Amino acid sequence: MARYDFASDNTAPATPEALKALIAANEGFTSGYGTDQVSAQAADLVRQMLDADAEVRFVASGTAANSISLAALCRPFESVLAHEHAHVCTDETGAPGFFGQGLGLTRLPGASGKIDPAALAQALDQPDVSYRQPAAALSLTNATEYGTVYSADALKALTTPVKAKGYGVHLDGARLANAAAAGFDLKAIKTLGVDILVVGGTKAGMPPTEAVVIFDPTLARRFDARLKQAGQLPSKGRFYAAPFIGMLEGGAFLRHAAHANAMARKLAGLMPFPVRHPVEANGLFVEMDEPTLQRLHASGWFAYRFLDGTVRFMCSWATTAEAVEALGESLRQIA
Amino acid sequence: MARYDFASDNTAPATPEALKALIAANEGFTSGYGTDQVSAQAADLVRQMLDADAEVRFVASGTAANSISLAALCRPFESVLAHEHAHVCTDETGAPGFFGQGLGLTRLPGASGKIDPAALAQALDQPDVSYRQPAAALSLTNATEYGTVYSADALKALTTPVKAKGYGVHLDGARLANAAAAGFDLKAIKTLGVDILVVGGTKAGMPPTEAVVIFDPTLARRFDARLKQAGQLPSKGRFYAAPFIGMLEGGAFLRHAAHANAMARKLAGLMPFPVRHPVEANGLFVEMDEPTLQRLHASGWFAYRFLDGTVRFMCSWATTAEAVEALGESLRQIA
Amino acid sequence: MARYDFASDNTAPATPEALKALIAANEGFTSGYGTDQVSAQAADLVRQMLDADAEVRFVASGTAANSISLAALCRPFESVLAHEHAHVCTDETGAPGFFGQGLGLTRLPGASGKIDPAALAQALDQPDVSYRQPAAALSLTNATEYGTVYSADALKALTTPVKAKGYGVHLDGARLANAAAAGFDLKAIKTLGVDILVVGGTKAGMPPTEAVVIFDPTLARRFDARLKQAGQLPSKGRFYAAPFIGMLEGGAFLRHAAHANAMARKLAGLMPFPVRHPVEANGLFVEMDEPTLQRLHASGWFAYRFLDGTVRFMCSWATTAEAVEALGESLRQIA
Amino acid sequence: MARYDFASDNTAPATPEALKALIAANEGFTSGYGTDQVSAQAADLVRQMLDADAEVRFVASGTAANSISLAALCRPFESVLAHEHAHVCTDETGAPGFFGQGLGLTRLPGASGKIDPAALAQALDQPDVSYRQPAAALSLTNATEYGTVYSADALKALTTPVKAKGYGVHLDGARLANAAAAGFDLKAIKTLGVDILVVGGTKAGMPPTEAVVIFDPTLARRFDARLKQAGQLPSKGRFYAAPFIGMLEGGAFLRHAAHANAMARKLAGLMPFPVRHPVEANGLFVEMDEPTLQRLHASGWFAYRFLDGTVRFMCSWATTAEAVEALGESLRQIA
Repeated sequence: MARYDFASDNTAPATPEALKALIAANEGFTSGYGTDQVSAQAADLVRQMLDADAEVRFVASGTAANSISLAALCRPFESVLAHEHAHVCTDETGAPGFFGQGLGLTRLPGASGKIDPAALAQALDQPDVSYRQPAAALSLTNATEYGTVYSADALKALTTPVKAKGYGVHLDGARLANAAAAGFDLKAIKTLGVDILVVGGTKAGMPPTEAVVIFDPTLARRFDARLKQAGQLPSKGRFYAAPFIGMLEGGAFLRHAAHANAMARKLAGLMPFPVRHPVEANGLFVEMDEPTLQRLHASGWFAYRFLDGTVRFMCSWATTAEAVEALGESLRQIA
Repeated sequence: MARYDFASDNTAPATPEALKALIAANEGFTSGYGTDQVSAQAADLVRQMLDADAEVRFVASGTAANSISLAALCRPFESVLAHEHAHVCTDETGAPGFFGQGLGLTRLPGASGKIDPAALAQALDQPDVSYRQPAAALSLTNATEYGTVYSADALKALTTPVKAKGYGVHLDGARLANAAAAGFDLKAIKTLGVDILVVGGTKAGMPPTEAVVIFDPTLARRFDARLKQAGQLPSKGRFYAAPFIGMLEGGAFLRHAAHANAMARKLAGLMPFPVRHPVEANGLFVEMDEPTLQRLHASGWFAYRFLDGTVRFMCSWATTAEAVEALGESLRQIA
Repeated sequence: MARYDFASDNTAPATPEALKALIAANEGFTSGYGTDQVSAQAADLVRQMLDADAEVRFVASGTAANSISLAALCRPFESVLAHEHAHVCTDETGAPGFFGQGLGLTRLPGASGKIDPAALAQALDQPDVSYRQPAAALSLTNATEYGTVYSADALKALTTPVKAKGYGVHLDGARLANAAAAGFDLKAIKTLGVDILVVGGTKAGMPPTEAVVIFDPTLARRFDARLKQAGQLPSKGRFYAAPFIGMLEGGAFLRHAAHANAMARKLAGLMPFPVRHPVEANGLFVEMDEPTLQRLHASGWFAYRFLDGTVRFMCSWATTAEAVEALGESLRQIA
Repeated sequence: MARYDFASDNTAPATPEALKALIAANEGFTSGYGTDQVSAQAADLVRQMLDADAEVRFVASGTAANSISLAALCRPFESVLAHEHAHVCTDETGAPGFFGQGLGLTRLPGASGKIDPAALAQALDQPDVSYRQPAAALSLTNATEYGTVYSADALKALTTPVKAKGYGVHLDGARLANAAAAGFDLKAIKTLGVDILVVGGTKAGMPPTEAVVIFDPTLARRFDARLKQAGQLPSKGRFYAAPFIGMLEGGAFLRHAAHANAMARKLAGLMPFPVRHPVEANGLFVEMDEPTLQRLHASGWFAYRFLDGTVRFMCSWATTAEAVEALGESLRQIA
């Protein structure tokens, strides 16, 4: 049977901390739809982590969380500026257009998953014409799809001209833990003009859960109705909130992400194929031709060919040094 | 602090069986998006319970599961026939119209949550006119919102004229366990013309999870893409599948539902207020004026006033005989 | 062949004034998408008629104009308050939900097509709960679907509590000409808190065209992109604008509507069946059992049975006194 | 004031034939919503032109007609294959995604507006994966956006592999008249596997109107409800049907298109700038740097820079030889 250790960071089980908190929360009767004490406590911890006064909701799906956020920032005849390989553009089956009733995605280029500021500037300079969907928001991702990490300054350089136009900013933090473990300052987010942030729980090692953080209070109005209609207001909210408590209270959120990042670096050190993007978070992207990838699969390790043609290896909280070494050995044999 | 024991059947924690299975599934790396072995095993158990060859998917939200099902059966300019107090009509913030791009809901009357066959016949007789949304599907609920249970024959009488028109049938089984515990034959569903069934996990005592069962194989084509776009194809599918394993393997699904139903009957026996609908499943609906309800709330018990003006008490797997007696005592005091 | 003179006010041909202006506008090359001089001139005339500084666009469809307006005022998880028999509720195949991605319609009762203020107040008092679509706008119709006419004061009484909540107001003026001819002060609209008004051209005797009047300037931003995406930004805008020039420049808009209203009153004088609503505009609603209606159809006159069970007779600019008398004679024979 | 003679083929007035038929149809009372005799006669003429038994509807907007067609062929989680510069991809403000609730557009390359068959084959070979919108239809355009014309054989080569997959085919015929005048056999369309065709009236010289031709009878079911909900079922259908009568009865449809094509060829003969695409229909695309284009605008002639960087000149039925010569002279002066 194939080994999925490096196929994605969502192939791993949940961390002990997350699971323990979920079990602890499974006690007694609570009110529903996120009004319970577990959800309140988890929201406090998220706010504390971000040092920000913001509305926090816990939902089941990152795809839905991103799409709902974009739909809150853009009208159907408007468009979201995003990296051409951002998850919202390539891996969500058009969910932004579904939740946003046809809202557009304007795909921007940029090396290693980071938006090229010049391309952004050019997009912002486009005149409004009735036959095109004009930009109304920017969607950012940190860590990026290519395992690179924006600094707060780099993000600020992107958001500043966007906010100057009065547009919204969404930050997809599916791997925010990995970005933070790589040095990205979570407390700086509140200074970047981000209107809605999605903090990934799933890829950070939790059972399925994502935190939606609404910095702009005007967006928060009737947000529960928005979530409910979109199938993302869980009746048993504590099951989505509790894992965040387990992960945030004792620092496991960052600690596990740091481990995942370290495993990626370790794998980079063993990698016999050319590495194509800076290894700053928990992913590694290498050049590998198709026959070689087939040999890798035959050897039992599953990995995906990615959009830029490289083969992606993802590490997670559960990746062991032994697995990295075993994969390294397999790679040497097929190289 | 208010006691939510009887506020809903989603205020309870998860059952030991469900949680144990979830913990057991949290082992090792698996492939994602429902392609894992846990999901396969749970799907087998659902098929076995229904004695049916059908596609099964596990999703996070009942609201989304229902709405996605209706969107699969109806086009935006068509309409779903449903009981006027069905969950899809009254408690989902218009989610069917959101997922179905404006699909209509044609509300049918009927005593105690069951659709009046004559009203259905009349709706089916409406001529197609371009300015109205013609019916394309029927949505049923068992057990109903008023704690009553359709027999297989009663459902068949409703679905037969609908299928004769070539329309689709959706069955909202948020409380299917309670219906089954009340005698409804789950293995008969496959003979009723149901195209899509949603088997409720959440209200049956699981962590958030629902099983979508697709009987009509033509509807199953590209269903994963449909789910993914709608934010309901979980990357870590095992967390939604495992609870079904825990609940179905040893019969806990029905056993817990039978307990919940029994608690409702017990409460009926202690109830000093007039009971308004047959107590066939896990809910009890009583006549109570507003001052009395306020006194009830003041006494610490939370209960909702429902759409027909009655006050609803819901029992669950976790409802204890002691709680029923304590509530009964409080009710007597305020009566 | 059936006579459609009284079936609707859209069965009539276009007025000479409208057609003449259309022919006059059909000269030379113009820029597209409503940027032409004909559109500019027509917009000026509409503003002059309303004595208001507002954005004006000309579109093809009243159904689309209404739905786009409601979608501009409400988000998908919100709801529009409207009379239960308003055109947006009953005659547009769910178009508001389609253009508004599932936005809800909260149906309010009221005699003769006018919203009952008490019912409106009750709806506005509903608390926001996440499982229902809360109100965000009011949709009004003048003249109403039952041929009655609101005064400016009566509208003001309805819009005042709505604006106090910060909600939007839409006015469906498909028969605004008839309302004006009945004494409704068009120049008062700007004082009523109306955010978007649709001025009907089609039913007033023009070739298909409707004017969308945007009083709230914040709603006007990117409205052309909104229209274009919704298929309502005509490339050859002059064909939709010119009829308004022909009808507004010399007063034909009101003159023809006054004639239509007079014909309805004349028909009321000849009517052998009970008339059910005040005859204030161009429609007449009478009690008539089904065999009688069939005899009417057999006699060659087509008329619709309406939502309240009455049979509707509509007059238009093209209704002749002779036709009214002939219909009156037929009615007497079948009575 | 700028001259718009060559800015587009929708800047021209309506032809005498179209306008005369519209005036002739403006007589007496008719039934509504396309059930009138004028609509029936026009539909017959369209069927005769195509030598095909098909459902025909007349609508106001080409953007809406295209989008509604695509929404009829694809579900929201599916995608339409189209040339990357097709009107549906670039000039409709995302209308396909709006009418199709997020349906995707898969953009294919190809010289001079024609889809590269190898690129189509590659797209059809893509495996279905849940995170991408799989193809469900092909959208073709004839004449293309770059003034080139597919032969029936060339279209057949594109549709054959698409139909073999069971996918739908849409043909955008906004300039079908120009294609026909260039030799494309309209009677061959019925052999090409086209499911829905939009025959352009507007760009062919009519007042705003498009004919939607539904070849696949299963798609025609409840199409009027589909159109009505989308704001494209005109109550006064005769105004959209009549122009087709005027243009089709005496051959004006093709005759005027042949003239427009001839004017484009004449302009090509006078063009001092490099022409970039074969001049097969009524458009001409030339290389021109920005300062030169500014000089052209300053000289009074308006023309658009197009998506491939060329400057586009469009001819229409109303383009005169004198205007072509005058433009030619202006171009020589600024060259």
